[in-house]
Amino acid sequence: MKIIVDAMGGDNAPEAIVKGAVDARDKLGVDITLVGRKEDIERCLGDTDRKGIEIVDAREVVTMDDDPSTATRRKKDSSMTVALNMVKNGHGDAVVSAGSTGALLTGATLIVKRIRGVRRAAMAPLLPSSENGFLLIDCGANAECTPEYLLQFAYMGGFYAKCIMGLDNPRVGLLNIGVEDSKGGELQHGAFKLLSEAAARGQINFVGNVEASSMLFGGADVIVTDGFSGNIALKTAEGVAKWLFTEIKTVFKSSAKNMLAAAMVKKDVKAISYKMDPNRVGGTALLGISKPVIKAHGSSNDEAFFAAIAQAKAFVEADIIGDIVKNIDNMKISEEA
Amino acid sequence: MKIIVDAMGGDNAPEAIVKGAVDARDKLGVDITLVGRKEDIERCLGDTDRKGIEIVDAREVVTMDDDPSTATRRKKDSSMTVALNMVKNGHGDAVVSAGSTGALLTGATLIVKRIRGVRRAAMAPLLPSSENGFLLIDCGANAECTPEYLLQFAYMGGFYAKCIMGLDNPRVGLLNIGVEDSKGGELQHGAFKLLSEAAARGQINFVGNVEASSMLFGGADVIVTDGFSGNIALKTAEGVAKWLFTEIKTVFKSSAKNMLAAAMVKKDVKAISYKMDPNRVGGTALLGISKPVIKAHGSSNDEAFFAAIAQAKAFVEADIIGDIVKNIDNMKISEEA
Repeated sequence: MKIIVDAMGGDNAPEAIVKGAVDARDKLGVDITLVGRKEDIERCLGDTDRKGIEIVDAREVVTMDDDPSTATRRKKDSSMTVALNMVKNGHGDAVVSAGSTGALLTGATLIVKRIRGVRRAAMAPLLPSSENGFLLIDCGANAECTPEYLLQFAYMGGFYAKCIMGLDNPRVGLLNIGVEDSKGGELQHGAFKLLSEAAARGQINFVGNVEASSMLFGGADVIVTDGFSGNIALKTAEGVAKWLFTEIKTVFKSSAKNMLAAAMVKKDVKAISYKMDPNRVGGTALLGISKPVIKAHGSSNDEAFFAAIAQAKAFVEADIIGDIVKNIDNMKISEEA
Repeated sequence: MKIIVDAMGGDNAPEAIVKGAVDARDKLGVDITLVGRKEDIERCLGDTDRKGIEIVDAREVVTMDDDPSTATRRKKDSSMTVALNMVKNGHGDAVVSAGSTGALLTGATLIVKRIRGVRRAAMAPLLPSSENGFLLIDCGANAECTPEYLLQFAYMGGFYAKCIMGLDNPRVGLLNIGVEDSKGGELQHGAFKLLSEAAARGQINFVGNVEASSMLFGGADVIVTDGFSGNIALKTAEGVAKWLFTEIKTVFKSSAKNMLAAAMVKKDVKAISYKMDPNRVGGTALLGISKPVIKAHGSSNDEAFFAAIAQAKAFVEADIIGDIVKNIDNMKISEEA
């Protein structure tokens, strides 16, 4: 398997990206194509054994200042654009990038293209829970959605959950402002109907509405929502966790007694904050794109980038795209066919 | 000042409600009208001094099983309905209820009515932050909103922030999925325009888009959004905080060493969880209703209910409704006038 790596994307590029990619070659047995400024990549590689590692030169870099909707088109020789074209043309099995989410999503949609019949690609990060975590889909790719998009997110999230969570029959919930069937606005009412129908056909294990307050306590493995509210939920969770750990750190430093106590529990408390760490899983798949494209967190260090490559490998091996293609007829609503 | 209390609403009614109300009479110097089953209230009062306390008998109780959209109409002799009719008819200055949010909101809208010109009433709880906290408006009253509603939430939230947060010129932000002006969907684009125009007129201190991840770190005193995403943000924050403290509790109990450390920092860590406690502020005003109606948290104990009455008192004294009425012309958009 060959993983195409955007070596220039993310806060810690290219050093951490190259290091994570070399680790992936060593530990996962994948071949790696590093795309980016050759001299920068060479410098990072130093005297590393080059077996299974290829460099493809690309002179430009998509930055956070670029307009995401045009970045990959304007910067045709950027590492991101070149990497996406490579996977499109079959010169590798998956792309992993820690660059701009918006640019990667637009680029993947325009260059690699969506799976035929998929209305919108979606982002589905894995969040922690009292059970084994849950996928929240979509988390920001699509600010405005239709019920049909949400139905498709449910199917795609389900296939993905089977792969990365190892579940036979993932439970799908609809994010809503109450558990009663009638809650929410038009989008939720429409999605609830479509999800119930898919459940009646035995195609989705739909467990109904899920409130944001109970997401982390289990009950659903895949939680479906529009990209706006999904992003609000994801970012609120990240922000609240960060804020609480900042407050706890302040408490731990506030007196000699507390500092002593902190030293005693530090490791265990850190393990909790690790659960909320966006770097942990490493990457988020762009579900609905016709080839595997994995977004690594922008602040990825080498470990996180390694984890993103591991996820790309699992994504390819599980053939999630094949699952989606096989089921695409169930994922459309007749009115719009 | 006379506060009308729905003595039968909430998980701990009537005991905690009556106790909190008696405390409010003692400490805040307000008169109290307790509405509910006379014999139950009498039993809770026991031999308490009755000075400044009046009981109004109401035989029915709105429960969480009642349909919120019809509860106050169907149960005309419920404590909630009677209390709302009393404030409407001037038999008191404010209503405080820990009963069903939906029923109270519908009841307040149908019985007490909105302020003339206000399109929708909204809920604006105070959330903690690294600064002095912030108001999130709306948090669930209106699943579907227009840009004009959000403009009105900004004005109403601003007046309320002046009162309960003591701010001269509260900073108003728009909850969005990125800080760039162009982020979000149609609703956010429309609201951003209206808020910018109001700021250009010098009427609102609009600070632009705010991401959910940074809400708790300050920068805005009032954060405006539709009721769906506001509810998702609020409930996610509550859920994540609860989940993290559950995890921390598990760590603290996991070994003798950790139990010792926990004993040393317990009080200080508890103070953090207290900040995230929905009972802390006590109540959430229903902004846009023509008389003060305060929703106390459903799980209010007597202290929380006391705090909700204190908030009702501050709301009346600050004459927030007068502020809204005086500014109603600025809060409408001409196209819809």
